[in-house]
Amino acid sequence: MLLKNCAFIVTQDKNRKILRDFDILIEDGKIRKIAKNLDGGEKSCEKLDCRGKILLPSFVNAHTHLPMGLLRGYKDDLDLHSWLSEVWKAEAKMNDNEYYLGAKFACLEMIKSGTSAYLDMYFGNGHILKSTVESGIRGYSGLALMDFEDAEKRKKALNEARSLAKMASKDKSGLFKPVLSPHSIYTCSKELLLEAKKLAKEYNYLYTIHLSETRKEVYDCHKKYGKRPVEFLDDLGIIDKHFVGFHSAWLTKGEISILGKRKASAIYCPVSNMKLATGGAFAYREMLESGVTIGLGTDGACSNNSLNMLSEMKTACLMQKWLRWNACEMLAQNALDMATINGAKILGLNSGSIEVGKNADIVFFDKKHYSMLPGTDIVSNIAYSASREAISELMVGGKFVMHDRKVLTLDEDKVKEEFEKDSNDLLKEGEKKHG
Amino acid sequence: MLLKNCAFIVTQDKNRKILRDFDILIEDGKIRKIAKNLDGGEKSCEKLDCRGKILLPSFVNAHTHLPMGLLRGYKDDLDLHSWLSEVWKAEAKMNDNEYYLGAKFACLEMIKSGTSAYLDMYFGNGHILKSTVESGIRGYSGLALMDFEDAEKRKKALNEARSLAKMASKDKSGLFKPVLSPHSIYTCSKELLLEAKKLAKEYNYLYTIHLSETRKEVYDCHKKYGKRPVEFLDDLGIIDKHFVGFHSAWLTKGEISILGKRKASAIYCPVSNMKLATGGAFAYREMLESGVTIGLGTDGACSNNSLNMLSEMKTACLMQKWLRWNACEMLAQNALDMATINGAKILGLNSGSIEVGKNADIVFFDKKHYSMLPGTDIVSNIAYSASREAISELMVGGKFVMHDRKVLTLDEDKVKEEFEKDSNDLLKEGEKKHG
Repeated sequence: MLLKNCAFIVTQDKNRKILRDFDILIEDGKIRKIAKNLDGGEKSCEKLDCRGKILLPSFVNAHTHLPMGLLRGYKDDLDLHSWLSEVWKAEAKMNDNEYYLGAKFACLEMIKSGTSAYLDMYFGNGHILKSTVESGIRGYSGLALMDFEDAEKRKKALNEARSLAKMASKDKSGLFKPVLSPHSIYTCSKELLLEAKKLAKEYNYLYTIHLSETRKEVYDCHKKYGKRPVEFLDDLGIIDKHFVGFHSAWLTKGEISILGKRKASAIYCPVSNMKLATGGAFAYREMLESGVTIGLGTDGACSNNSLNMLSEMKTACLMQKWLRWNACEMLAQNALDMATINGAKILGLNSGSIEVGKNADIVFFDKKHYSMLPGTDIVSNIAYSASREAISELMVGGKFVMHDRKVLTLDEDKVKEEFEKDSNDLLKEGEKKHG
Repeated sequence: MLLKNCAFIVTQDKNRKILRDFDILIEDGKIRKIAKNLDGGEKSCEKLDCRGKILLPSFVNAHTHLPMGLLRGYKDDLDLHSWLSEVWKAEAKMNDNEYYLGAKFACLEMIKSGTSAYLDMYFGNGHILKSTVESGIRGYSGLALMDFEDAEKRKKALNEARSLAKMASKDKSGLFKPVLSPHSIYTCSKELLLEAKKLAKEYNYLYTIHLSETRKEVYDCHKKYGKRPVEFLDDLGIIDKHFVGFHSAWLTKGEISILGKRKASAIYCPVSNMKLATGGAFAYREMLESGVTIGLGTDGACSNNSLNMLSEMKTACLMQKWLRWNACEMLAQNALDMATINGAKILGLNSGSIEVGKNADIVFFDKKHYSMLPGTDIVSNIAYSASREAISELMVGGKFVMHDRKVLTLDEDKVKEEFEKDSNDLLKEGEKKHG
């Protein structure tokens, strides 16, 4: 396929170059050429006029709980620990169909907002796998491992994680990969944390965990183990370049320095942190200076309450600027980096920039959408003013999953209808404000 | 006109009632009846099926600088005072046509995002009036009065304010009303602040001013006058129920108490405050408890960078929750109140709720839009997850200005084209990153 005369290509290459009026040749899902006046070679080649389009590597949402969209609007405005105990009660009632439908709806929401890859932690990951492959986007999902110091629960969780690995190995789409996901220090025993690491090494999977999301978590960890969370995990040998800490909002400079030395990654979730009033703040500048790879994530649609990477980028910048009384603390370009190239790097995905040899994972913006005008600074427009409505196409591995805002891989009306019905069934009468 | 079978009506009445499957009868721009199974009476009556719609009083954006959209993306990521000096240079080059086109584009952006009324401060207000009336929405705009202690400038500014009053008195649309808008304490002499108050009383206009936006402003005021801004203005007799302070991010409890006693209003601008890294925070709880009427505003599209009241509501809640480590500090309902009923009250508009006798200023959401699902809590969906794309219709005074996302009052393509060209002309080559 040949993308002709792209008005702008925000490459996100090493120099963060922006190309004007270039063509892109795509073969076998990969970007083969980027130049002016390409003709597609000898083979007959589908051509698409991209004169009104701004092309950008599509977004990587580096922290999600996909099926939680079923609980969007349920138990809002509670602090994290109260909220969690309410949400766990509702989650306990979820079945396989709910994992499947919840994840499918989340994929729909992500496609509509330009996201082509996610890093997820939840239950029913086989059903999430199925939804993801049907949606045509890339998913990394791990079972939320928890044992609450119970050996039986631990065994069961680890077995399930092994089953997921087996199931995923049979998938031929190449879109899905499991990760090992202990839920947190406060829900996992030391044994589970270590066993999970063993498995992660065995399968060459990422190791992801909620890390220092609240002050209480840090306090409890220190009380139990005499160490702060990163110190504790590092002493267990868990922190390395495959380690990803979600939230990481209550870290000391010393802990950040450990993450940097180990070439680990941290995921900033500004909207969720603010909404759940977790108080702490992701120390962006210190993370950056220590060499931590920083991704951006929405968290679940129940604490966010959306999976919109556009508003996540904006809120990230707003929070950092305001936190440090410094309007340069995080720039639009920094936010875009987290949401694209960094996220891809963390997942080990050959995506995240528009360069020859990379996967053709591309989001298309309508240059003339009112939220993109007057077009003085395209990166600023994307991070600070763009509406999801300005996103016209999403391409994953060279295939369009959305074109002219129509999702091609899913029956949008059916997905929405089943999702809504299922959420209604899940929440008892009286738990919902409006049916 | 009869709106039949509205799926939900978020009335914003005194009890914040939400009605299900009700009809609304509209006559002469006003809501005449709200009930089930209305038939429109004896007269033939246009009927609209609203089965898939959620109706809400349309938004009031209580702090704007409409033509500044021309500078969207220009000089981002600077602190307020550095930013202001850059922006003033660009603004000095603006002409009448730019005021007109900039305001018209802003009206387009507001219509697309469900806003039917704004409170503005800028230059070229006659041209803003023209744009507003053509757009069919409601505008309150005042000349940004500044004299920098210069008597000649003062005289000129006050004369222009009088001319605007005269011009507006000839407008028959009923959509536009001027206000008196001294820019700030740091750009206006004491004489100008007082003369403006005299005029505001003479015309029965609101008196609006940027108030304690930055710490520097407070410091400078104290140095010059020996008082903090609210104390200073109150001693001049300026603060009363017609007084509106924009930003108000650096007020003491004592100052808030003065605003409350005088029944004055304050406008919260969370996105702009965070983006310009002004450090302070709007003390929402204290304002509420002191009886200050609290509106919500985006500020100009050059500091925000959009005029989107949906994301303004969300950011307001996020900021307050995080600021006070309290997930209940500002609820979705509080944000919706600021954005609708409070804004209308501040402007003295007979709008802001869907009740019999009120103006039919209504925004329609598509209940089945992905960002509104699963519909567990409609108010939460509007404040926390709704996309602008979910807004299907906007009605002002009983007339649709947008239907099925098509703007009826403006030629959208033409407005965008002229706006983009004009912004390109305004900013010299080299000042723009992308043309």
